Amino acid sequence: MTAHAPLTARALADRFALTVHGDPDVAVVGVATLTAAGPDRLAFLSNPRYRPQLAHTAAGIVVLREADAEGFTGTALIARDPYVAYAKIAALFAPRADAPAGVHPSAVVHATASVDPTASVGPLTTIGARSVISAGATVGPGCTIGEDCVVGEGARLVARVSLVKRVRLGKRVTVHPGAVLGADGFGLAMEAGRWLNVPQLGGVVVGDDSDIGANTTIDCGALEDTVIEEDVRLDNLIQVAHNVHIGAHTAIAGCVGIAGSTRIGRYCMLAGKVGVAGHLEICDKVVVHAMTMVSASITEPGEYSSGIPAQPTREWRKNAVRIRQLDSLARRIGARAKGDE
Amino acid sequence: MTAHAPLTARALADRFALTVHGDPDVAVVGVATLTAAGPDRLAFLSNPRYRPQLAHTAAGIVVLREADAEGFTGTALIARDPYVAYAKIAALFAPRADAPAGVHPSAVVHATASVDPTASVGPLTTIGARSVISAGATVGPGCTIGEDCVVGEGARLVARVSLVKRVRLGKRVTVHPGAVLGADGFGLAMEAGRWLNVPQLGGVVVGDDSDIGANTTIDCGALEDTVIEEDVRLDNLIQVAHNVHIGAHTAIAGCVGIAGSTRIGRYCMLAGKVGVAGHLEICDKVVVHAMTMVSASITEPGEYSSGIPAQPTREWRKNAVRIRQLDSLARRIGARAKGDE
Amino acid sequence: MTAHAPLTARALADRFALTVHGDPDVAVVGVATLTAAGPDRLAFLSNPRYRPQLAHTAAGIVVLREADAEGFTGTALIARDPYVAYAKIAALFAPRADAPAGVHPSAVVHATASVDPTASVGPLTTIGARSVISAGATVGPGCTIGEDCVVGEGARLVARVSLVKRVRLGKRVTVHPGAVLGADGFGLAMEAGRWLNVPQLGGVVVGDDSDIGANTTIDCGALEDTVIEEDVRLDNLIQVAHNVHIGAHTAIAGCVGIAGSTRIGRYCMLAGKVGVAGHLEICDKVVVHAMTMVSASITEPGEYSSGIPAQPTREWRKNAVRIRQLDSLARRIGARAKGDE
Repeated sequence: MTAHAPLTARALADRFALTVHGDPDVAVVGVATLTAAGPDRLAFLSNPRYRPQLAHTAAGIVVLREADAEGFTGTALIARDPYVAYAKIAALFAPRADAPAGVHPSAVVHATASVDPTASVGPLTTIGARSVISAGATVGPGCTIGEDCVVGEGARLVARVSLVKRVRLGKRVTVHPGAVLGADGFGLAMEAGRWLNVPQLGGVVVGDDSDIGANTTIDCGALEDTVIEEDVRLDNLIQVAHNVHIGAHTAIAGCVGIAGSTRIGRYCMLAGKVGVAGHLEICDKVVVHAMTMVSASITEPGEYSSGIPAQPTREWRKNAVRIRQLDSLARRIGARAKGDE
Repeated sequence: MTAHAPLTARALADRFALTVHGDPDVAVVGVATLTAAGPDRLAFLSNPRYRPQLAHTAAGIVVLREADAEGFTGTALIARDPYVAYAKIAALFAPRADAPAGVHPSAVVHATASVDPTASVGPLTTIGARSVISAGATVGPGCTIGEDCVVGEGARLVARVSLVKRVRLGKRVTVHPGAVLGADGFGLAMEAGRWLNVPQLGGVVVGDDSDIGANTTIDCGALEDTVIEEDVRLDNLIQVAHNVHIGAHTAIAGCVGIAGSTRIGRYCMLAGKVGVAGHLEICDKVVVHAMTMVSASITEPGEYSSGIPAQPTREWRKNAVRIRQLDSLARRIGARAKGDE
Repeated sequence: MTAHAPLTARALADRFALTVHGDPDVAVVGVATLTAAGPDRLAFLSNPRYRPQLAHTAAGIVVLREADAEGFTGTALIARDPYVAYAKIAALFAPRADAPAGVHPSAVVHATASVDPTASVGPLTTIGARSVISAGATVGPGCTIGEDCVVGEGARLVARVSLVKRVRLGKRVTVHPGAVLGADGFGLAMEAGRWLNVPQLGGVVVGDDSDIGANTTIDCGALEDTVIEEDVRLDNLIQVAHNVHIGAHTAIAGCVGIAGSTRIGRYCMLAGKVGVAGHLEICDKVVVHAMTMVSASITEPGEYSSGIPAQPTREWRKNAVRIRQLDSLARRIGARAKGDE
């Protein structure tokens, strides 16, 4: 990572409303972990687990809680939430990919598409009929944007993203490479022993400030739209089927699958590899732990699980056999209990 | 969605062998749900759950079963299977992406490849040596087609599809964006503590009328081909390993993984996130429910499961501990039962 | 598959230090299975399960173990590990995709990028600022390589691969289509009810001779790098989150997900659809069976599992109900056992 122009503890404190302990003129050119940081780097302490590293850090500045500052002899920036403060500071040092305004000459833009002059359309990207690239948006290299799509103001398709058709992205949405939005939903009817595809005529709507991870797929709706509300975070390799609705501020980790027409509330968190069946309602503020199967609606906020932790295989095999006999075992116990009476 | 030229109830009834109840001259320009449809739209009632919506619909035409028509005062098209009839009608109104015949000047086609004059090759697509694009086929933008591939008559690669090598698609096959067919299978041998890749020399064959979902991967076979028979439906983010064979009319939902050399029968249905081990045989007409692990062959048609529904985490944790002690619990019960005798 | 120039049993024996039984002048032009091979093909017998096929094979040459050669009247090449010997012989017959040195005129290479004259950059590929394509490397068609990436000597990006930023591939690394390396990790902080993205400033390092499967995603690290050591094998549709570290010679099958900052040892094997939680340590030589959830560190080599084999649904449903009551069942038994005392 190339070094940034130095920023002093005082400048950072002013900018983000933090308090300086120690020398306010210490300057840093980047960020690093407590153990890797040298005197020209800023580090942070948020997770108490890493507190012992504080004594040995060579970091020029450390962002931490008031309570952790006691006894620390270096320069500190005191924050109520050091991770949040760190995230904002680190953003100052983050390199930004070069994306000049204008349409690269190798891009292929349909005559009826519209690209704002302040937008950037990268090389080898295609933009289909009637699609709109809004002010300040970036469409990176190798994207395919189909017909009737909108990329909102300041949105960014990093590279090699497909918006297939009728996909409308809000402002400042980020879509990572390989994501496919607006492919046909999986709608099938069987007639005389053969599948008939049910036309998928809806679109995909993504609210402002949402992020879509690499190789994640969000299908277009059957009749109405598939909807991702604002400020949603989707990680990589997630499948969102047609007509799913995901509420604002919900975060979903990698490899989750959500079947058709399910509605997930606001401020939910789904951990990795969760599966959610179709046509369910999950209320707000539900946390689902890793590898859980959600096969019924959830109406109470709280935490839900069904994943089984690993065991040595030779023990697990015996238990797995018993699981498959569990009902008869329970009946046997019930019968004996009755007999005891 | 742009409106279509109006079609009357009579015209639709004639075309699809349906019966009109009510005014045969009512015309519609598109389709919608029972609740969203206005007088110029056609809706359908198939799932009994939505029957109460019928009384309040403003739809110009409703497709429904004879039994549901009783008491309905609007214009109806009577169908034995309203969902099938709706699917066919909706297809008339579905917008078709613009794909003119011919090769876009930005496409890169190898000198030994052959593109039928009636086929469409979109912008920024590459076609490798000895590959063939058949009559009426569409290869959308951003695809990479390698060597020795065949895209069958009327087949459609929507956009950004990779056929890596030796992939032969039948007639009217559809492949959605991000799908990768014909990458090397995962064939490894270990020699002196290092992996050796076993050459993957087979191809991939996809039968007529099959569909492959977004970001799904189907590896080429090791020596013989990986085979998807005709009229198969694969959803998004599915992994099909080398030498898998999937029978005709089978439908597989998102996030399923099928390990190498497994053979799945005809008319099977695998729900989301199912895992199937390698070298198995699954017979025809097997239904596997969501998140099930299939680790042995299945020789009887029917339904199979092993997914566990979610519970509140504080209850689940106690149960999960017991699962891992289940064999000793069962033994204890067995011993006590013996002691009782 | 086009036929190769014939190779005799003697020539193959000399090249790979094998012993010929039978006629050393028998020549083959390719490889096939025992059942499909004709007199001009070489087959192999490794898995004892296929031994009965040996009596009926028409293969010109069979690679097998000394013990299996007894009674075989055809020409055999005796190998200690026939699968390894076969893999090396088959590689001689494997067709190689055409990738001439030089940059295809349709590729878009940044002025500050550097491409070795012996490297091949295919059509419709983009290479960003300061990236380096080393000697003998192949970047296939439709790739997007961002800023500050290195493709090592002899490495191969098959087609349509994305290296997003700060991705450094070792020598002879192979990356299959659709893979995305170096997308932002899933690092989030919440402030006043809205998500804040934590800048992801690290990169991805892949060691020599490792392979990355189709549509697999490996995120860049938050501060330090995500690391894949040498000779690792990753199958398709795997998610590797930020700051994961995977040890040398480890092989991971399709659809596995590994959460952030987890460290996996050397010579591990993870079967399909395994999920590994974040911030764990898995020691060397751990085998994890299919669909297992690893939610705690593993400190002993060996085999681990938690996947439940499928059952007919009507039986499974009863068992699944009992699983969710298991703790109270166990308590009831415990109480009764106490009562018995």
